[in-house]
Amino acid sequence: MSYEEFSKNQLLDELNNLKQKFEEIKAKGLNLNMARGKPSPEQLDLSMGMLDVITSESDCHTSLGTDCRNYGNVAGIDECKHLFGDMFGVDYESVFVGGNASLTLMFDAISCFMTKSPYEDTKPWYEVKDRKFLCPVPGYDRHFGITGYYGFEMIPIPMLETGPDMDMIEELVSKDSSIKGIWCVPKYSNPTGITYSDETVRRFASLKPAAKDFRIMWDNAYCIHDVTDTPDTLLNIVDECKKTGNEDLPILFCSTSKITFSGSGVAALSASPLNYNFLLDRYNFQTISYDKINMLRHARFFKDYDGLLKHMDKHKEILKPKFQVVIDKLTDELGDKNIANWTNPNGGYFVSVDVFPGTAKRVVALCKEAGVTLTGAGATFPNGNDPQDSNIRIAPSFPNIDELSEAMDIFCICTKLAACEKLLEK
Amino acid sequence: MSYEEFSKNQLLDELNNLKQKFEEIKAKGLNLNMARGKPSPEQLDLSMGMLDVITSESDCHTSLGTDCRNYGNVAGIDECKHLFGDMFGVDYESVFVGGNASLTLMFDAISCFMTKSPYEDTKPWYEVKDRKFLCPVPGYDRHFGITGYYGFEMIPIPMLETGPDMDMIEELVSKDSSIKGIWCVPKYSNPTGITYSDETVRRFASLKPAAKDFRIMWDNAYCIHDVTDTPDTLLNIVDECKKTGNEDLPILFCSTSKITFSGSGVAALSASPLNYNFLLDRYNFQTISYDKINMLRHARFFKDYDGLLKHMDKHKEILKPKFQVVIDKLTDELGDKNIANWTNPNGGYFVSVDVFPGTAKRVVALCKEAGVTLTGAGATFPNGNDPQDSNIRIAPSFPNIDELSEAMDIFCICTKLAACEKLLEK
Repeated sequence: MSYEEFSKNQLLDELNNLKQKFEEIKAKGLNLNMARGKPSPEQLDLSMGMLDVITSESDCHTSLGTDCRNYGNVAGIDECKHLFGDMFGVDYESVFVGGNASLTLMFDAISCFMTKSPYEDTKPWYEVKDRKFLCPVPGYDRHFGITGYYGFEMIPIPMLETGPDMDMIEELVSKDSSIKGIWCVPKYSNPTGITYSDETVRRFASLKPAAKDFRIMWDNAYCIHDVTDTPDTLLNIVDECKKTGNEDLPILFCSTSKITFSGSGVAALSASPLNYNFLLDRYNFQTISYDKINMLRHARFFKDYDGLLKHMDKHKEILKPKFQVVIDKLTDELGDKNIANWTNPNGGYFVSVDVFPGTAKRVVALCKEAGVTLTGAGATFPNGNDPQDSNIRIAPSFPNIDELSEAMDIFCICTKLAACEKLLEK
Repeated sequence: MSYEEFSKNQLLDELNNLKQKFEEIKAKGLNLNMARGKPSPEQLDLSMGMLDVITSESDCHTSLGTDCRNYGNVAGIDECKHLFGDMFGVDYESVFVGGNASLTLMFDAISCFMTKSPYEDTKPWYEVKDRKFLCPVPGYDRHFGITGYYGFEMIPIPMLETGPDMDMIEELVSKDSSIKGIWCVPKYSNPTGITYSDETVRRFASLKPAAKDFRIMWDNAYCIHDVTDTPDTLLNIVDECKKTGNEDLPILFCSTSKITFSGSGVAALSASPLNYNFLLDRYNFQTISYDKINMLRHARFFKDYDGLLKHMDKHKEILKPKFQVVIDKLTDELGDKNIANWTNPNGGYFVSVDVFPGTAKRVVALCKEAGVTLTGAGATFPNGNDPQDSNIRIAPSFPNIDELSEAMDIFCICTKLAACEKLLEK
């Protein structure tokens, strides 16, 4: 029965009941964490074999004879370019292989545009005093962090079931040349888990931005990260942009952070020749090369893209029951209360929950009090500002099933408790 | 006998003689490379043991319990902070551990100052249109590359036997607030091999720059890289700056690129609290952390700073005879010709040779023709411009002794040949 149909006395009874449960849990002194999309130790164990594929001198050479222990190969080794080329679905020659984090590649790309321009008739973004960036919401806090650091005004774009609101995007970018880009997680979006529809990808490829140097930051972080047996598919934006003549619009990013080791993976980007050379001009001064032994470790461990996909099946087997616990708990505890909505993604690392408007901060605080750490309320919005105070990102990967089950019980109690409080205020 | 005492006919005879030798060598079709300061395979082999110190799950945890495979610890793991703290001679808490290249840390530091300022009353360097950087010459081409990329006017500062010309530096920085920093390789300087005298370090620590945000980029790349049994010592600039109240002047950099693997080492910086927090504000958006497994590999392999120093003794044993070959060949072949000067360093990776003025480019071209690749002439000067066309950097580390000996023979022949040509022009 929906809370909104409760009488005031019913709500008071429910609140007292929930408060009692809450105090019982609090007394347990739990310490559970669902704050970040961290792989569990069990997932990390899947890649331990990678740590001893390169131990002797003869292991250290690429197929082209490069000694990976020494300097050189600024754009990475071919073995890894091929692996990422297959992941992106692009020509391997468009791939630049970086260090251990795609976040760093994205930061550096924005940083590059801040002080240089790829065109003679556009200015480095530092000189665009009212520079703006489009931010689909809810979205990834670390994306917003980068454009926040660089002083962009961040314009929230609502996420629909098909991806970000393309009507709004088309309208905005066609008029305002100070809008310089957009953050996208096109597959299993962080945090909604939504995959952009074919139409959305085509509309991105057909954008006609007023800013010649407008860029789509296409962070395909979860491109092969299914958590069900009914995976989503994403249209290839590079192919679509070739059709529209908009090849310079997107820059693609991905990494093995959630494939091998989150702290010691390999990241890569793929870009059109213009963007590639623009970024490479910088990398030629920023590094001599990133860690080629770690690149070769990855290439040897997976052998090829099929090996990589088989490895992802093992992750899926670990993550699938965890996502199921989250969805089951939400359905069982909140399904008939009409106080929350959530997504049921086929992949990625998150479940996005919209709790009763005006209670997200309260829910997160209550959970904290009961020993469950969640991502801060508002984190999924630019500058941490969720105007509805409603969205909460659930990250089920790190805890084990029992912990997760307990944490979700607490989350549901806190969600209901906060909703009761809010309804009683009225 | 000095070439300048030769009669014209004697010079012509010498030139013909040298040309004949040159043609004989050219016919051999050699392919030797002394262009970059690359460790030899034999040196890289010294660290192979590092590649299997971390292979099991239990190996992956720091002494504080951090799972190095996962996200977190933006400033690096304590084990590595301690190791680099000892290398720098500073408190480990002032250390930030980065990725595989100190070059990247230096690039990122300059990049940070370009768009942000650590003080309210100074501007990001991007806004200083006539920004300048001091560049001791001959110096490291990749340093100059960074400030060149960021549009600095680079002011060459002559290197003396005590380090860069401090009179000139004091004069310049006290007057011009658009001078924002200086590149320094204080020990076994690249390429001269000179170590800054105690007085030079003290004068650096006592600088009174007009620019509040003037910074000394203290690249201590060769801090423990001796190649003789009579090593130089360098005064600790952090201690000296504490005495003068100038703690915010220097930012220190080093790495294990020439200790373990050039492509897969670990880099670090050390900075005052003000500089540290200024840079960390950026790193908090640029990364979640650099590769902690590789950090732990290093810490476990060396155990402690003593272990690191013992490892460096092995490098010394390999490099010492190579440097001796270079010095012996130069002395035997050019010692009495009065056409070249060179340094005889106690450490580092280079021997700096000043060939007959106006012939460096010609010598490098002749060597190339004869199958020996050298660092490009002029590379040791900002924008590749050596006004004397005289300085050539010799990198003896990579070739084996026989190759090096042959390459040095060729270098000496080409140096003499170019000097004869030049003298005959007069």
